[in-house]
Amino acid sequence: METVTLTKPKPLPKLSASSSGKGLKIIPLGGLGEIGKNMLILEYGNDIIVIDCGIMFPPEEMLGIDFVIPDIRYLEERKEKLKGIIITHGHEDHIGALPYLWKKLNVPIWTTKLTAGLIEVKMEEFNISGLPINLIKPGDKIKLGVFEIEFFRVNHSIPDCVGLVIDTPEGLVVHTGDFKFDHSPANPKEKTDIGFLANLAKRKVLLLLSDSTNAEVPGYTPSETEVAEALDNIIGSAPGRVIITSFASLINRIQQVINAAVKHHRKVAISGRTMIDNINIALKLGYLSVPKDVLIDIRDVKKYGDDELIILVTGSQGEERSALVLMAGGEHKAVKIKPGDTVIISSSMIPGNERSIYNTIDNLYRLGAEVIYSRNSGLLNIHVSGHAAQEELKMMIELVKPKYFIPIHGEYHHLYNHAKIAVQTGLDSSKVFVIENGQQVLFSQGRGQILPSRVPAGYVLVDGSGVGDVGNIVLRDRQAMAKEGILVAIMTVDAKSGKLLTSPDIISRGFIYMREREDLVEMTRQKIKELLSHYSYQHPANWPLIKTLIRKDLGEFLYRHTKRKPMVIPVIIEV
Amino acid sequence: METVTLTKPKPLPKLSASSSGKGLKIIPLGGLGEIGKNMLILEYGNDIIVIDCGIMFPPEEMLGIDFVIPDIRYLEERKEKLKGIIITHGHEDHIGALPYLWKKLNVPIWTTKLTAGLIEVKMEEFNISGLPINLIKPGDKIKLGVFEIEFFRVNHSIPDCVGLVIDTPEGLVVHTGDFKFDHSPANPKEKTDIGFLANLAKRKVLLLLSDSTNAEVPGYTPSETEVAEALDNIIGSAPGRVIITSFASLINRIQQVINAAVKHHRKVAISGRTMIDNINIALKLGYLSVPKDVLIDIRDVKKYGDDELIILVTGSQGEERSALVLMAGGEHKAVKIKPGDTVIISSSMIPGNERSIYNTIDNLYRLGAEVIYSRNSGLLNIHVSGHAAQEELKMMIELVKPKYFIPIHGEYHHLYNHAKIAVQTGLDSSKVFVIENGQQVLFSQGRGQILPSRVPAGYVLVDGSGVGDVGNIVLRDRQAMAKEGILVAIMTVDAKSGKLLTSPDIISRGFIYMREREDLVEMTRQKIKELLSHYSYQHPANWPLIKTLIRKDLGEFLYRHTKRKPMVIPVIIEV
Repeated sequence: METVTLTKPKPLPKLSASSSGKGLKIIPLGGLGEIGKNMLILEYGNDIIVIDCGIMFPPEEMLGIDFVIPDIRYLEERKEKLKGIIITHGHEDHIGALPYLWKKLNVPIWTTKLTAGLIEVKMEEFNISGLPINLIKPGDKIKLGVFEIEFFRVNHSIPDCVGLVIDTPEGLVVHTGDFKFDHSPANPKEKTDIGFLANLAKRKVLLLLSDSTNAEVPGYTPSETEVAEALDNIIGSAPGRVIITSFASLINRIQQVINAAVKHHRKVAISGRTMIDNINIALKLGYLSVPKDVLIDIRDVKKYGDDELIILVTGSQGEERSALVLMAGGEHKAVKIKPGDTVIISSSMIPGNERSIYNTIDNLYRLGAEVIYSRNSGLLNIHVSGHAAQEELKMMIELVKPKYFIPIHGEYHHLYNHAKIAVQTGLDSSKVFVIENGQQVLFSQGRGQILPSRVPAGYVLVDGSGVGDVGNIVLRDRQAMAKEGILVAIMTVDAKSGKLLTSPDIISRGFIYMREREDLVEMTRQKIKELLSHYSYQHPANWPLIKTLIRKDLGEFLYRHTKRKPMVIPVIIEV
Repeated sequence: METVTLTKPKPLPKLSASSSGKGLKIIPLGGLGEIGKNMLILEYGNDIIVIDCGIMFPPEEMLGIDFVIPDIRYLEERKEKLKGIIITHGHEDHIGALPYLWKKLNVPIWTTKLTAGLIEVKMEEFNISGLPINLIKPGDKIKLGVFEIEFFRVNHSIPDCVGLVIDTPEGLVVHTGDFKFDHSPANPKEKTDIGFLANLAKRKVLLLLSDSTNAEVPGYTPSETEVAEALDNIIGSAPGRVIITSFASLINRIQQVINAAVKHHRKVAISGRTMIDNINIALKLGYLSVPKDVLIDIRDVKKYGDDELIILVTGSQGEERSALVLMAGGEHKAVKIKPGDTVIISSSMIPGNERSIYNTIDNLYRLGAEVIYSRNSGLLNIHVSGHAAQEELKMMIELVKPKYFIPIHGEYHHLYNHAKIAVQTGLDSSKVFVIENGQQVLFSQGRGQILPSRVPAGYVLVDGSGVGDVGNIVLRDRQAMAKEGILVAIMTVDAKSGKLLTSPDIISRGFIYMREREDLVEMTRQKIKELLSHYSYQHPANWPLIKTLIRKDLGEFLYRHTKRKPMVIPVIIEV
């Protein structure tokens, strides 16, 4: 094993005030774990541009949280500098925070046609319309303050993705967006523009910012063509209906399913709201080409023979109430699974979803279907990643030949391994920076350095209609109750004498099933009486102190009897 | 793709009473998802034997649950038939339920020396001693009722594993236990006995029960020797300390680390309780061979040069307070991570643990260590599975040549894919049964069939000292509170007039942070007053009904204002 020493974000010697601000700043913002993915900013003098504005899905310990969005205080404090928002592609982790943050930023957005369409659909859900979106396409150049931005085509798992070349007073910055090199994608126009990238090197690139998602994966990511071949193979030999699920945003995958349907003389029915919505917008904007009479209504599947049907559905992650999960549970109105059905799960298993996905697979097997998924498909590539693997990442660096390199779009370990790869290609390790959200890299007079200070770059939790109102205290309480439940002890006392007026009321949820443990409930009630008379000798009683003491003693009492630690809340009601 | 029609556990036509009970019954019991792993029983006439007695770790949705153990009502009702418990190896999912269930079963246990040692350590934690454990070794034969059981050596990721050949009045049943074919294991005595298995075919095997864990994995599981080579390679070129984590029960892996340490003139220090405990018992029973002066106390690491040290630690799954996690957080007393350290995570990532493992890796990187783990180790096998992959599973079937085949030790999709493999080897698909826990397969006069009736085979939840006292209601409450929190509305009313005596008290946890939303708290209080006066016009008031109405109305009120649905508990206190 080769050990590479990388420049880590350690505290650096303090810079003098004058040297800390001048030049080009690169600052990844927000997100949770993933760096520079949901949002990244470039700042020079009085100009700031924002790249992407996405959400993260919360990790499991953030109980009940719907999304996580970037904390943009840094931008709000510099609103007058902000010149525009550029969106690289239409995935949730790049567009999803716009409904929450756009009003605060309130500057024009620049993106491609499909991405703009997806943003508009999203904004409509929030009743926001009339967004100033400017359409761009690969080859276009725009100027935002001092920044001149040129767009180039990259291939990824959704159509119409772009990378950026940003001409700054300090030199050229290349931002790959999410990408892979697929020389035979579903749509031949959607190849990453390798010629354009190769020509960049001649223009002397100061900095490359590159997608790190698959930096741990050796070799090359297989081409989407391999999926086409696998689907063709399976559909061609399937005895009955073929039910296919994938991510609804994988428009190119949907195109391949349509192509296979046409080839094998099958109709395609669609089930699941996001799948229908995405197909509609892709059709409307010309990103999906479907011959006449191929699409049929899901309610009409009974009119066709089993071997004349493909059913394209949501549910690739085993999502509750998704079309595939309803089918697996026997609850789908139009489609009842039966022996002879072949189900293809054409997607990866996102960590955390394995349980739900395998439950769905097990239920499909129980109903007699054949199920083909990533882990039992052997040599058939029924899904490929949309991100570049190690050899492609090296190729990107070799094409662009940057002076400096900052890996983005990944967690710290992805960035670290990407940085290692960069050094393996020959980059000087002192010119490779592994940074975290909120860290600033300053380029000044051709020299880059990590600044010692960080900008605010936390995240904001979205729960229901609340944005930012669930914080650590609420989350900690949810975690505590999730594990051990809660016990509320209500003591109604005479305001004058401090004596109990009624027997204490005990409310418990998630701790024990009270009806089956009346013994423990009664013991607890006695214990509360005992504690209250023990602690309330003083007059007037110091209720806050007494509550604290009862909480502690009652907690210990319950732990002794159950080895569990419910959240204990004593309530004193003075009448 | 080949589609294989398997005999599924569909309801069969009812058998006549006489035919339903006679013969040999195979019944997988308990567990959760995995079939026949935690416990499997063989029943013939008046004799029952139990194979394994393990726990499952609960899925995430079972909030706060420590373990899941099999429901053994079927055995308790037939206690007089029970002749013995056989344990195939010392992993938790095969021994872990003994402290909870042994008293109820109360029959002798038969197992190998190391497994017995591990069981005894476990029982001591529960203050249970004097267990009637009978030691067996491969080649031994015992008789339990009508069953004659012969043990044979299998290789797995813990030493001293056995498979079973059970001679029954209906014919020979072979149970593989957990196994792989490793022709070059860490300990050459620990190879799966391929010669013995080949000879079994001559004796006509009625039924093979075989480990399905890796039935989705193509090819062969690599040999433990490959791990030895990888460790040798990494340790040989590491510039400083090498810190290695693995599963503490992987005694053979620990042996390989010791071997590499000796070869590279390094001392070995150990940190983490389960690692120390497992090494001690393996040393005591002769399953680990360590030259004198190789092991040193963790507190003495400072006395050695960095390149003279290997530190063997717990924490391969990112477990809270484990040695590696303490090191990654800078909290370990004896070892502070620094640049030059190499950390090897020699284990798989169990689904659900990715978050914690990657957090640990990220923190180690931040402290300057080099980290090598399954996903960035490229061609180096720093961990191999202990279970047979598809080609080995086929080989097992080819060696044993059973008439019937039942895949065990896996979830339904594992069993299904294993069954498919069995059919590919040439077994008649009508003689391959995919069954679930509680289903019974009856062999009678040479013919096997799945019985239409199931036996009770649920699971029992262990939470703290409570076994079985947390059921669906408590779990559902935990899930609800985890997602949206709880709001308790306490209304103290005059017992005579039914009028409120004080302003309603509101207790909320995990819903909103009340101090920051006093507006909502006040609105809620007003709403409660309003609802109460609206509903309590009747005299005497129907409090149970009023509570139900307030719960509903208040829930809707809160949802309207927050788009969240906390658990609402109205409490009426009459004074």
